[in-house]
Amino acid sequence: MDLTALQKLSYGVYVITSKDKEKFSGCTVTTAMQLTSNEPIYMMVAINKENYTYEILRKSKKANISVLDKNATLELIGHFGFRTGRQYDKMQKVDYELANNGIPTLVQNTVCYFETTAINEINVGTHSIFVLKLDNCKKLNDNEPLTYDYYHKVIKGKTPPKASTFINI
Amino acid sequence: MDLTALQKLSYGVYVITSKDKEKFSGCTVTTAMQLTSNEPIYMMVAINKENYTYEILRKSKKANISVLDKNATLELIGHFGFRTGRQYDKMQKVDYELANNGIPTLVQNTVCYFETTAINEINVGTHSIFVLKLDNCKKLNDNEPLTYDYYHKVIKGKTPPKASTFINI
Repeated sequence: MDLTALQKLSYGVYVITSKDKEKFSGCTVTTAMQLTSNEPIYMMVAINKENYTYEILRKSKKANISVLDKNATLELIGHFGFRTGRQYDKMQKVDYELANNGIPTLVQNTVCYFETTAINEINVGTHSIFVLKLDNCKKLNDNEPLTYDYYHKVIKGKTPPKASTFINI
Repeated sequence: MDLTALQKLSYGVYVITSKDKEKFSGCTVTTAMQLTSNEPIYMMVAINKENYTYEILRKSKKANISVLDKNATLELIGHFGFRTGRQYDKMQKVDYELANNGIPTLVQNTVCYFETTAINEINVGTHSIFVLKLDNCKKLNDNEPLTYDYYHKVIKGKTPPKASTFINI
């Protein structure tokens, strides 16, 4: 089978943030989406189980989703996508605010954010899906959201092996 | 909260097809994605439980995903998105092929398709997530995939109330 077909699926680029006691961290994902439209609105995110963000999200049950815009730099995206927050404070070098739920959301190159509570985790091999209840959301501007396609074609970004969208070819 | 933030999430546009005995049907969704990269590769789709495709997918456990291209017409997208296949044979008026698993995949305005088997269903209110094992995939051409953003801004498409991305505002 021609696995490059998987590259024809469309995604945005998001930073999922959470916390472990007073330590914050986050990671870049493409796997956030809205699932339902009646309130409470449910969203989801899929995360690699080896990620530090996975570990703290399943403990705290809190996850915020920052939607990156098209001016987001490779540096910012890679900062959250290509290194672990286990021994390193990722939030130290970026601008963030604390949302109502006490979890950070990005400030720079961010179109909007969602504050959510994880209500279910579904094991899918290397990754887990978290079903997220939307508690609050805020639009920061009307910048164009970054797409995964734009990340590859214009920003010339790569895909880390732990990402959902990695293709073993 | 400003629910228009939900419009900043990015999606593709897909037709999910399945069958009930010898009757085929399908529906338009934005909620397909790749979840894992090691084989077996897992994908997912979220579908409204009132959809006829939901009903036949959960019975047959088979779902094919056709990725629409940017030349897909409002007529084709709406054919699968705005009417039910319960009393009407949606496949009769479109070109399709049967994939290896005996489920149809679209031919016109289709970039590639995925043949999948549903291995898990997760209840999320009005919708369910199906975790799908990827059995086969095929690329038909290198056309640009249709994005949900393009569907709204260029094709001027609307969102039906049963869609995951509907916003009650």
